[in-house]
Amino acid sequence: MPRALIISADGFEDVELLYPYYRLVEAGFETLVAAPERGEIRGKMGYKVEARLAFDEVKPEEFDVLVIPGGRAPERVRLHEAALNIVRHFFENNKPVATICHGPQVLISAGVVKGRRLTSFWGVKDDVIAAGGNWVDEPVVVDGNLVSSRYPPDIPFWMREFIRLLE
Amino acid sequence: MPRALIISADGFEDVELLYPYYRLVEAGFETLVAAPERGEIRGKMGYKVEARLAFDEVKPEEFDVLVIPGGRAPERVRLHEAALNIVRHFFENNKPVATICHGPQVLISAGVVKGRRLTSFWGVKDDVIAAGGNWVDEPVVVDGNLVSSRYPPDIPFWMREFIRLLE
Amino acid sequence: MPRALIISADGFEDVELLYPYYRLVEAGFETLVAAPERGEIRGKMGYKVEARLAFDEVKPEEFDVLVIPGGRAPERVRLHEAALNIVRHFFENNKPVATICHGPQVLISAGVVKGRRLTSFWGVKDDVIAAGGNWVDEPVVVDGNLVSSRYPPDIPFWMREFIRLLE
Amino acid sequence: MPRALIISADGFEDVELLYPYYRLVEAGFETLVAAPERGEIRGKMGYKVEARLAFDEVKPEEFDVLVIPGGRAPERVRLHEAALNIVRHFFENNKPVATICHGPQVLISAGVVKGRRLTSFWGVKDDVIAAGGNWVDEPVVVDGNLVSSRYPPDIPFWMREFIRLLE
Amino acid sequence: MPRALIISADGFEDVELLYPYYRLVEAGFETLVAAPERGEIRGKMGYKVEARLAFDEVKPEEFDVLVIPGGRAPERVRLHEAALNIVRHFFENNKPVATICHGPQVLISAGVVKGRRLTSFWGVKDDVIAAGGNWVDEPVVVDGNLVSSRYPPDIPFWMREFIRLLE
Amino acid sequence: MPRALIISADGFEDVELLYPYYRLVEAGFETLVAAPERGEIRGKMGYKVEARLAFDEVKPEEFDVLVIPGGRAPERVRLHEAALNIVRHFFENNKPVATICHGPQVLISAGVVKGRRLTSFWGVKDDVIAAGGNWVDEPVVVDGNLVSSRYPPDIPFWMREFIRLLE
Repeated sequence: MPRALIISADGFEDVELLYPYYRLVEAGFETLVAAPERGEIRGKMGYKVEARLAFDEVKPEEFDVLVIPGGRAPERVRLHEAALNIVRHFFENNKPVATICHGPQVLISAGVVKGRRLTSFWGVKDDVIAAGGNWVDEPVVVDGNLVSSRYPPDIPFWMREFIRLLE
Repeated sequence: MPRALIISADGFEDVELLYPYYRLVEAGFETLVAAPERGEIRGKMGYKVEARLAFDEVKPEEFDVLVIPGGRAPERVRLHEAALNIVRHFFENNKPVATICHGPQVLISAGVVKGRRLTSFWGVKDDVIAAGGNWVDEPVVVDGNLVSSRYPPDIPFWMREFIRLLE
Repeated sequence: MPRALIISADGFEDVELLYPYYRLVEAGFETLVAAPERGEIRGKMGYKVEARLAFDEVKPEEFDVLVIPGGRAPERVRLHEAALNIVRHFFENNKPVATICHGPQVLISAGVVKGRRLTSFWGVKDDVIAAGGNWVDEPVVVDGNLVSSRYPPDIPFWMREFIRLLE
Repeated sequence: MPRALIISADGFEDVELLYPYYRLVEAGFETLVAAPERGEIRGKMGYKVEARLAFDEVKPEEFDVLVIPGGRAPERVRLHEAALNIVRHFFENNKPVATICHGPQVLISAGVVKGRRLTSFWGVKDDVIAAGGNWVDEPVVVDGNLVSSRYPPDIPFWMREFIRLLE
Repeated sequence: MPRALIISADGFEDVELLYPYYRLVEAGFETLVAAPERGEIRGKMGYKVEARLAFDEVKPEEFDVLVIPGGRAPERVRLHEAALNIVRHFFENNKPVATICHGPQVLISAGVVKGRRLTSFWGVKDDVIAAGGNWVDEPVVVDGNLVSSRYPPDIPFWMREFIRLLE
Repeated sequence: MPRALIISADGFEDVELLYPYYRLVEAGFETLVAAPERGEIRGKMGYKVEARLAFDEVKPEEFDVLVIPGGRAPERVRLHEAALNIVRHFFENNKPVATICHGPQVLISAGVVKGRRLTSFWGVKDDVIAAGGNWVDEPVVVDGNLVSSRYPPDIPFWMREFIRLLE
């Protein structure tokens, strides 16, 4: 059974975490959420999700795909070196990564944006560019292992491409 | 392009509407939301969704599949005869219907529960039984055209079966 | 001193619990609230009420009258067999019961609706009918021991009839 | 049919307005709410009540009893000379007045506290005393036409005495 | 290093506490907050502030200036004799006191309003007058050691005068 | 009379806007708030502030100092070229600029961070570095015309240095 990892924290954009979570389960993945600490994390709108792993408990080589939802969570995730190491593992091994909205804030801190073609929420566009990314304004951008989108209305196109990449 | 209809109202359980909405778009459906009146409806958690049609503007023969999300919306939906007629059209023509959580409250009012095998949120189980339904406690129940689930954690199983039915 | 019991749970419609609570105290009743567990329960609007008894601690023969307020609480109350047994005791012994709004959801689960004349919140009208009740759209309906109303604006008429029944 | 007037404003303590409102209707009074302006006023917890009269539209000689609920409303009510004149009319004519919680803030501004025996919420006790009132710490205090209480748990005793005064 | 004390409680008007707190630190004061008990207090809008002292731990002779912010906190502060004794110490020793909005409720309970010229939020104006104060409607009123204002928009004028007094 | 400009938007960190606003008025500045559009903007905690100017109505040469508060507002401000031009005017003319928390997001978009010594909220530290800033972890950093801080507890030190710069 393939395994998916979602890295997030309090303040996630609820549907940006819940949709890929349920979608990957639907597609047959064992899906786990990791956060700064084990336990319940809470979305902007109030949904609660159980983080079964702390970032420093994650063995990234045991996971096949990575998802980084948006909202206010990425500003918290990026402060944890263990989370950044997870991200680097996926990029160094060219394993599939899906990111949306503020998710690229984590990519910037992990140092993996330079030279990549991607999108994000408009509010962090200039940070992506300052970090050397090639930012484009499209509902979904696929650049090798990286599938990125801008905000919730892009979700069906984001996950359609991501699932296609996994097949 | 196949067409999907979601019938709901203010107070919907956010992810029970958003997931099938995005999921059906992902699967290539033109997906529309209908409500008592056209315009924005608001979920329990605060997500807003545009209802492009009022119930009495819907021509059910133009849609291929029907979704009835849960939350507090079904108690409002069931008060509208136009919504009940939409439901009856789908059952009379044996077209696919997905329902979750409190969604079966609408089925009860439409008079289509008798003799059907289905599930729902536990809080309305006794109403389903009183209306002649064969209520079972499983994550997803498929009975002919009807795919039913209990609550948000069942979503991946609910939509996996529903998409399978549509193929 | 006569004794009144109110059965409810988190999510009660605040004034539908507080009014009969204070009203019965005013009328000289020792009035207690029972809930799934002892302790504080919280209304939809935020009022907090102390439940001095858990359902399974209630000895219904020690109480003279029963009140079932509405809101989202009845969906929780009806899941507890101990609460349903309390209701059945009152109906079997023809002791006064007041119910309002979603309160009849508990009556349906207790199996005491069949053949009774009553009202409820419009959103659960079809469930009452499916359960064999004779639903009428009036501010207050008195049918033997049962006094039922529809929603908060009916409260003065509801309690006027209920107090009359107790005298 | 006797007539009751409730004077309040946004921020009323919900149950301190709703209980006497419904209670006086139950007792056969035509009951109206007056506020700084006509229209909806909103309680601390969120209940909404229709004010059918603005203070300056009230003819106090047409009402038999007056109620002044508490919460944050009395600080707003007391700023309106028209409201203070209503209060003075009731005291000058020795007509029944019920007040609870912060309600006596309005009495202070109307200049009718001096020499009276009454109670209030503890937080404004010293203001009542500074205004010449004889403050006592009891669930309900009856002093001629004035029936006063301290906070919501006193409501059944407050209204029992007030209804007794009206008979 | 001069020392400032702020006395408040849950429900403080956030900016009426935060502004003088930061302003006095900016001006070189060691600034402490005291409350009914040690620990976090929470403003109306949600800001949290650490109270490092309970009222009965305060030695008022160790502080040079006193601030009493408004909001709903003063109704709670005035119930504590220890807080009133702190206020009396400052008035008896003619040490600087700044108060705003509902802050004078504490002064009334401490018995120090009589004969003083001051202002307050309009909603408690009549209480100040009943207590013998000379209430004036100006953005800031300086009367000896006492600097008072009405509401948040007065803050810059309030603190300009207070800082001037301290120099 | 010297003139101060604050640029912000909905979602500002309340006290990071209110403190410098009142502080600059206290210091004798005419202080105006500009936002994407004229009218009320609302802070994270709920404070409302009137924006008297839209960004594109601002003539930056008419203002002596600029403040950029934090919170979620800077992500909105940075999307407006007119706001970025205001910022560039202040940097090109070496006029005083105070920024705190997420404020440097606006500086990044304006292209003025490269080679500057500054601080910010930790969550955007890596963006400042990616944009060529020399990020330091201190309560207040003064680099020529630029005074920056990290979060609300730094406010007294931030404004002490900024006011010093203006004298």
